[in-house]
Amino acid sequence: MQINDLLNHTSEWLKGTGPNSDIVISSRIRLARNLSKYPFPHWANKSQLDGVLDDIKAAVAKIDMLKSSTLFVLGELDSIDKQFLVERHLMSIEHTQKTEKKALLVDDEEIIAVMINEEDHLRIQLMQSGFNLFEAWSIINRLDDELGKLLDYAYLDDFGYLTACPTNTGTGMRGSVMLHLPALVMSRQIERVLAAVSKLSFTTRGLYGEGTQASGNFFQISNQVSLGHSEDEIIENINGLIRQIIEQEAQARQILLSKNRTILEDRINRSFGILKSARIITSQETIELLSMVRLGSDLGMFKDIDRRTINELFITTQPAHLQKIENKKLSSDERDLKRAELIRKKLNLI
Amino acid sequence: MQINDLLNHTSEWLKGTGPNSDIVISSRIRLARNLSKYPFPHWANKSQLDGVLDDIKAAVAKIDMLKSSTLFVLGELDSIDKQFLVERHLMSIEHTQKTEKKALLVDDEEIIAVMINEEDHLRIQLMQSGFNLFEAWSIINRLDDELGKLLDYAYLDDFGYLTACPTNTGTGMRGSVMLHLPALVMSRQIERVLAAVSKLSFTTRGLYGEGTQASGNFFQISNQVSLGHSEDEIIENINGLIRQIIEQEAQARQILLSKNRTILEDRINRSFGILKSARIITSQETIELLSMVRLGSDLGMFKDIDRRTINELFITTQPAHLQKIENKKLSSDERDLKRAELIRKKLNLI
Repeated sequence: MQINDLLNHTSEWLKGTGPNSDIVISSRIRLARNLSKYPFPHWANKSQLDGVLDDIKAAVAKIDMLKSSTLFVLGELDSIDKQFLVERHLMSIEHTQKTEKKALLVDDEEIIAVMINEEDHLRIQLMQSGFNLFEAWSIINRLDDELGKLLDYAYLDDFGYLTACPTNTGTGMRGSVMLHLPALVMSRQIERVLAAVSKLSFTTRGLYGEGTQASGNFFQISNQVSLGHSEDEIIENINGLIRQIIEQEAQARQILLSKNRTILEDRINRSFGILKSARIITSQETIELLSMVRLGSDLGMFKDIDRRTINELFITTQPAHLQKIENKKLSSDERDLKRAELIRKKLNLI
Repeated sequence: MQINDLLNHTSEWLKGTGPNSDIVISSRIRLARNLSKYPFPHWANKSQLDGVLDDIKAAVAKIDMLKSSTLFVLGELDSIDKQFLVERHLMSIEHTQKTEKKALLVDDEEIIAVMINEEDHLRIQLMQSGFNLFEAWSIINRLDDELGKLLDYAYLDDFGYLTACPTNTGTGMRGSVMLHLPALVMSRQIERVLAAVSKLSFTTRGLYGEGTQASGNFFQISNQVSLGHSEDEIIENINGLIRQIIEQEAQARQILLSKNRTILEDRINRSFGILKSARIITSQETIELLSMVRLGSDLGMFKDIDRRTINELFITTQPAHLQKIENKKLSSDERDLKRAELIRKKLNLI
C-alpha cells in the first residue's frame, strides 16, 4: 500500500456502521507496550531504536493478522503526509515530531495502527465503527497475544506492563469512544454530563484527541486509570458509562423532535443549504455545519444522503487531506476555497 | 376586479423590466390634487367628502385610461386587505386609518393608483418598472389633463396646485425612484452618496416609503421641493441625480467583481442556499437574503432564476400577502413558517 492509496479508502472508523452508529462514531482501544531489552524511546540511543524497529518488523512479518499491513517510516514522509495520517486518526501529533527511527504500521482496512518508537516502543491501536468496544478488545487482545509471543514485553507481576509514563502502567490500555452529542449540547445538558464523566475518572477530548477542543458536538471519552483493574473491568466501566450517555442523547433528541421540531429542522436544513452553496468555508464552520447535517441524517430528515458521505467529509475537508487531494501545498485561503468546492461536489451530486 | 385577483398578478413595478432594471426597481410619480369647491379632507365634513368621492367617480367613468380600473371603498376592507394594498405600494399607511369616505382606484395593471380623500382629495400615482421617469410623467400628465378637464382643481396662478400640506403646493408632484444599491453598501460608499442626495434637497426612504428604514439595500429617492420649478425641471433633476447613482453602483459592482469575486459569490450563494433551505424565516432576513440573490441574478450568476421571481418574493413574503395567500389570520410565528415554505416552493421549482 502507498500512502496515496488511503485517499480513496474509507477508514474503518468513518464507515458509519456498527451498533448505535447514530450517536457513536467509533470505538478505539490502544495498548502501550515496550520491549524489555531496550530503554524507553526517549532514553534510547539510535542503535537501540533501530533494534526496536528491527525486532518489531521481524515479529510483524510472522503474524497473519498483519499480512496486509504497510510500514511507513516517518523520516521519509513530508509534513503533509504526516499531518494526513494524524487527520485519519492513525497516529498522534507527537509522532510527527523528531521522526528519526519512528514508524507507523497500518493495515489495509485502517482497523489496526501501530506507532513504533513514539512515547512507548509500541502503541497498538484498534478502531471499530460504532459502539463496539468488546469487538475492538477481542481483536486487539488477539493481536497483542501474538505479538507477545514473538516479542519480550517489559512486564512486572506487581505492576503489569511497564510504560514510559506511569499513568499508562498496568494494563497499558486506553479505551475511547467518539460520541456525537448535538442534542445534549443544544439542550444545554452537556456540562452536567461531562462533569459526571470527569468525576468518574474519565477524560473528555475533542475530535482530534489530546489537547483539542470539542467541536462540532464531538466528544471523545476515555478511561484515565489503567492500573489496578483488569482490561475487562476497564472496558465494562467505559461501556456502562457510554451506554448511559447514549441513552441521554437519544432522549434529548426525542424531546427536541417533539417540542422543537421546526426549529431543529430549520437549523439542520440551513446548515445543509449553506454547505451546498458556500464558496469559501473554514474547517471549523465545516465541522459545525456537518454536525447538524449528520444529526438530520440520523433523524431520518434526508433520504438521499448517507452517514458515510457525511463522515468522510469531516476528514477529507481537513487541511492535509485537501492538499493530498489537490496534490500541492495550499495556503489557508486556498484551502477555504477548495474545501467549499469539495463539499459542494460531494453534497450536490447526491 | 376583486381584491383577491391582485394575488395572482405581478404589479407593474415588480416586473423587473425597463431601463437599468438591474439597479432600478421602479420609477414612480405622484400628483397631489384637490377640488376647489370642497375643503381639504381633514377639514371637510362627511357630506363634503361624499361630494368629493361622487365627483371623482363621475369623472373616472368618463376617462378611457381608467376603463379597466376598480374603486375600493376602504371602509369595506378588513385590516389585512388594507395592509395588502400598502404592501403592493398602491397606497400609503395613512390611507388605512380612519377610512370613512376614503377610497382607492387601481387599474388592472397596477400602473395607476389614485387615493381619494387621503391628505388631499386626489393622490394620483403612476408606477413604471425600471428607470422610466419620463414615461411615467408622460402617462400621468395625460391622465391629469383628462381629470382636470372634468374636475375643477384648486389652483392659483401664483402658487400652482393647492395642497393640504404646503410642502406639496406648486406642482403637487413627487417623483421617486426605488434603487437597489448592494455594491455601494458593501463597499461602504453609501453614506457619502446619501449625504450628497440630502444636500441636493432630495430625500431617501426605505422599501416601504415614509418613515421606513432602508433594508435589503433598497433606497427610494424622491424630490423634496415641488414649488418654484416646472414638472419637467423636477424630473430632469431627479433623473440626472439617479443617473449618477446608477453609474456609481455599476462601478462599485465591477470593482467587487474584479477584486472580491469569490467573497461576493460566497455571500450570494450562501444567501440563496439559506432561502432554499430555511424552515423559519423573518421578513427582515428574507429581504436581506433576497437582496443578495437579486444581485447575483443581476450579475448573471444564476441562469435559472429571473428577476421577476425574486422581485415578487419581496412582496409575497410580506405579512398581509402571506395571510391573503393562506386566506386566514396568521400569528408572527406562523408567518415565519409559511414564509419559509413559500420561498422554498418558489425557488426550488426553478
